[in-house]
Order: sequence, then C-alpha cells, then structure tokens
Amino acid sequence: MSKDFSKLMSYAKHVASEVDKVINEVVRGRPQELYEASYHLIKAGGKRLRPLALVLSARMFGLEERIGILAGASVEILHNFTLVHDDIMDKDAFRRGVPTVHTIYGEDMAILAGDLLFAKAFEALGRLSGLVSADRLVNAFRELAWAAVTVAEGQALDMEFERRWDVTLDEYLSMVYKKTAALFKSSLVIGALLAGAPQNEIANLEKFAEGVGIAFQIRDDVLGLVADESVLGKPVYSDLREGKKTILVIHALSRLGPEGRRKLMSTLGRRDASVEELSSLAELIKSTGAVEFADSLADKYLEEGLEALGRVKPVDQEAKDLLRDLAMFVTARNY
Amino acid sequence: MSKDFSKLMSYAKHVASEVDKVINEVVRGRPQELYEASYHLIKAGGKRLRPLALVLSARMFGLEERIGILAGASVEILHNFTLVHDDIMDKDAFRRGVPTVHTIYGEDMAILAGDLLFAKAFEALGRLSGLVSADRLVNAFRELAWAAVTVAEGQALDMEFERRWDVTLDEYLSMVYKKTAALFKSSLVIGALLAGAPQNEIANLEKFAEGVGIAFQIRDDVLGLVADESVLGKPVYSDLREGKKTILVIHALSRLGPEGRRKLMSTLGRRDASVEELSSLAELIKSTGAVEFADSLADKYLEEGLEALGRVKPVDQEAKDLLRDLAMFVTARNY
Repeated sequence: MSKDFSKLMSYAKHVASEVDKVINEVVRGRPQELYEASYHLIKAGGKRLRPLALVLSARMFGLEERIGILAGASVEILHNFTLVHDDIMDKDAFRRGVPTVHTIYGEDMAILAGDLLFAKAFEALGRLSGLVSADRLVNAFRELAWAAVTVAEGQALDMEFERRWDVTLDEYLSMVYKKTAALFKSSLVIGALLAGAPQNEIANLEKFAEGVGIAFQIRDDVLGLVADESVLGKPVYSDLREGKKTILVIHALSRLGPEGRRKLMSTLGRRDASVEELSSLAELIKSTGAVEFADSLADKYLEEGLEALGRVKPVDQEAKDLLRDLAMFVTARNY
Repeated sequence: MSKDFSKLMSYAKHVASEVDKVINEVVRGRPQELYEASYHLIKAGGKRLRPLALVLSARMFGLEERIGILAGASVEILHNFTLVHDDIMDKDAFRRGVPTVHTIYGEDMAILAGDLLFAKAFEALGRLSGLVSADRLVNAFRELAWAAVTVAEGQALDMEFERRWDVTLDEYLSMVYKKTAALFKSSLVIGALLAGAPQNEIANLEKFAEGVGIAFQIRDDVLGLVADESVLGKPVYSDLREGKKTILVIHALSRLGPEGRRKLMSTLGRRDASVEELSSLAELIKSTGAVEFADSLADKYLEEGLEALGRVKPVDQEAKDLLRDLAMFVTARNY
C-alpha cells in the first residue's frame, strides 16, 4: 500500500473499541446458549467499518461521536445477523478464521441467533431515544428497515444467480448494490439523518456509498480468486465451489468460446471439486482478462464515489478526510 | 360455545380484510421467488388476532382505526416471520392446512423469507411516519424490537426444553410468556402507545395480555393433545412427536410413578413413533388429570387478565367490550 492509512487505522481502532462496548451491553441476556451463539461471530473480530462510516458521516454534519457510536453498534449487529444467516445458506464452515455459528451450534440455533441479532439491531437503535430528536430517530429506524429489506433481496438474487448461467453485468451490479452496498449506504445515511443533514448531502452520500460499496465487492470477488486461505479467513475458492456468479465468472463466460465455457460450467458450483480442479478453473477465468476487467470497473466506481464525497460540504473536515481514506482503504488492491 | 361472538367475528373480519390490504402492499416486490415464499403463509389464512387486539387497544384510547390498521399489519407480519422460522426449527411440514414455507421452497429460501418479513414488519411500522407524532412512533418501534427479542428468547427456551426432562411449571410459564404472550402484549401496547395512553393504562394492558396470552397457550397445548387433524391444520400429536414440554407433559411427569415416567420418556420426542404409540402416550398423560389441571390454570390466568382489563378507563367502551370478547374467544375451550 502506497497510501498512509495510519491515522484512519488509529481512529478505526478507537471506534471499534467503543462500538464493541455498546454491542457487549446490547447482546447480553438469557438463555445462555442463544446469546453465546449470537455473540460468537461478533467476538471473532471484524473491522467495524460500517460503524466507522456511520460515525464519520455523523461527525461530518456536526453530530457528536458518542451518538454515532450508539447507532454504529446497531448497523454492526445487523451486519453480523446477515453473515450468520448467509453462512447457513452458503454452507460456509469458516469465517474470520473461526468455524461459523451453525457449524458450532447447529442450524436451528444459528437461525435463531441471527433472528436475535436482527431484533437487537433495532433495540440498539432505540437506545438513542432521548439523545436525538424523535423525528430524526424515526428516519433512522426507517433507513435501517430499508437496509434489512434490501440486503435480503440481494441475498435472494445471489442465490438465484448460483443456479443461472445467463447473469448479466447489470444484474450482477444490482445484486451487489443490494447485498453489499446497501448497508454501507444506510450506515452513512443514518449518521447523516441523526445529524440532521440536508437532503442534497444525503444524496451525495448515497452516490458515494454506491461507488465505494460496489468497488469493494468487485475487489472482494478478485481477492476470492487470487488470495490464499490465511488472507481470506476461509478455504480458498469458496466462491467457485458455491457457484457464485462473481464479476470474474460473468466476464469469463462472455469471453470464452464453447469449449472454455463447457469446461468452466463443468466445474463451477461443484461442491466436491478438488483444489486442483478449482485451481485450473481459476487459471481459465484469469486467462480471459477477468481480473483486469474487474479492477478497472472497480476503479471507475471508486472514482465516481469519491467525486460525490467531494461535493459534500462538511462542518468537520477531518471526518470527511477520514471518510475518503476509508473509501481508499476498503477498495485497495491487496493482491 | 355458549357466548355469542358474532359482533366480535364481524369486526374481526373487517379488520382482517383491511390489514390484509396493507400487508399486500408492504410484502410486494422482487425477486419474485423470495416474495412468493414470504407471502405463502400469510396467504394461507390466520385470524389476524394480533392486529385486531392492536386496533381495539388503540381505539380504546381514542386513536382512529385506520392508524391501528397500519400498525396492525406490522405485528401480523412479525408474527408470520416467527412462524416461518419456527416451522424450520420444529421441522413442521404443515400449518394452517397447507405445506410450510420450507417444505415448498427449501430451508434456505424459508430462512430468507422469514428475514424479509422481519424487515418488512419494521418497514410497515415506518409507514406511520407523519400520521402520529414521532415520539409515539419511536415508542412503538422500541416495543416492536422488544417483542422480536423476547420471542426469539422464548423460542430458544422452547427448544432447550425439548432436550430436558426437569422443566418446572415456572420455567414453562416464563417460556410461554416470551414465546406467545409477548407479541400479544406488544400488539396491545403499541396500540396504546400510538394513542398516547398513560403509563398506568399500559400496565393494565400488560397484565391483561399476560393472563390472556398464557391462558391461550395452555388451551393450545390441550388442543394439541385432544383435537384431530382437521381442527389443528397439521398432523395430530406434533407436540408429542417433537418432545415439546407442554404443560400437560410437565404435569404428567410430576404425577407419574417410575414405571409411567419410563413409558412416557421412551415415546415422547421420538419422531418415528407410530400414531398408536402416540395415542397410547396421550392416554397416559390424560390419566394423570393433566387436562383438568391445565384447564383450571388457564381459567385462573384468564380471570387475572380480565380483571386487569376491567381496570382500564376507555374513551371507547365498545372497543373495550370487544377486547374482552376477544380474550374470551381465544381462550375458549374448543374441545
């Protein structure tokens, strides 16, 4: 990495630590096994980037940090809910380097742990009652509900695409917007709504989030093809084994001839494929220039996002600078 | 039934029809399969008793019906979310006389359909923005989140109890309060909060809901032991097959000698038990006076609930009368 992210990292660490304190208070109760299962993935780590985005957005429009922290706990809990349920559906056995919730506690308890986290996300937001005006808090509740609806729609599309071979680039981008960018967008928007930001600034944030969120997912797709297990925190080639229609697969399918397509389709989505077969599939995909295509598309989305952020007139310039750093950081090429 | 419920039934039908229109607007979108799966159980019927309770509670404190209807859609959607996920965990293949969501669409889609409904419940409540004061709406959001948390805790207890043989009556009552009474309570409380009812009246409603909710579940336990498939809308003896620690089982375990307990424990919770074995188990349980015990406990809870309702000073006496009828109706002995 050429850019110096030390200031961002230091602030991210501070926010994560404060957010974790709040989450620890909110996700606590009985029955014990349910709460242990619900806390398992949260405990396993994660960078708390959505709370960080929320806090910075809130600060940018003049809201004090501690209120952003409380709301940040809410979006982080919601994010963890989606991961717990996605891991069941995707049959993923590892995440963040540890066994997934359903692997340890069974599917039934994992469903319920996800449900509890979902509810706790709204409970956490309710804790802002009395700290911000009720009008602003209602707006935040509605935004959080929108995010939850949209992420579910995105996950449904992702699952549908696993069964299809004719997914277009536009369909992919729409899925990624819903599954990945939406909650990042809502994190930023909730921060701004709680701060009472004007409508045009919220529109800027939405553009920013869309660009950064999509660029992030495209890089994540590439990482899934080129990185090793220690970087991923889960087995290599999970995406290929699950038949995910990543941007790389979509590009490859559009470029390969009949023979190549046949080869790709015979291995992609086969859960029993060997690492050798998957590695050969990865090479085939790379041979179409898919990584270069993905990278340049990510660059384009990132640029559009940064432009939108550039239009924001902040009351706290440092917060805006850090938000720009955050965008660069999450979309950096770590490969 | 000796009591005449025709007035209640007529109003219930009206509310259900209005609530269904709202649900139909809220639970609509794409991807198609996700929304079909989410709508499946809602479409299959149900009496919409929680919206009815909410509307009557709201009316009792002077809120217009159409606002209660909108909020009623929210609690009904949340209720259906819990049913979709419970059916996966309990491996129930039928509900309301039709195959359950996971039976038709698979477990993954059923998890996601439940998640979407969960989110839609909060979206539906958000539609009240601008129709009631933001203060009241924030209170309603917090109450709905509390209900969602509590129902998840109740379901976890219910599952834990399936594996245990030493569940006490108090533990049973606490589980039933969370799993069944809590959302009924929140429906009433949300109606009252939206109407701006004073705190002491909300406390009366909580007492009322606790009594009626627990009495309802006790009667439902009895119904599961004595009713036939056409009444239940699902196979007979599901509770016995799943090893549920109903109040009947808890009572029987406390009354049977070593031989009887051994017999009970050897069949209860065996998914492959024959109808003959389960029928013989049901007779064994009945022989302990469990049904009579359950009935008298339900009577006691109902009475306490009705006393609490009696203390409410309504602005709309008809609404209070109908709420009393509703309590009598849902706790009537239909066996």
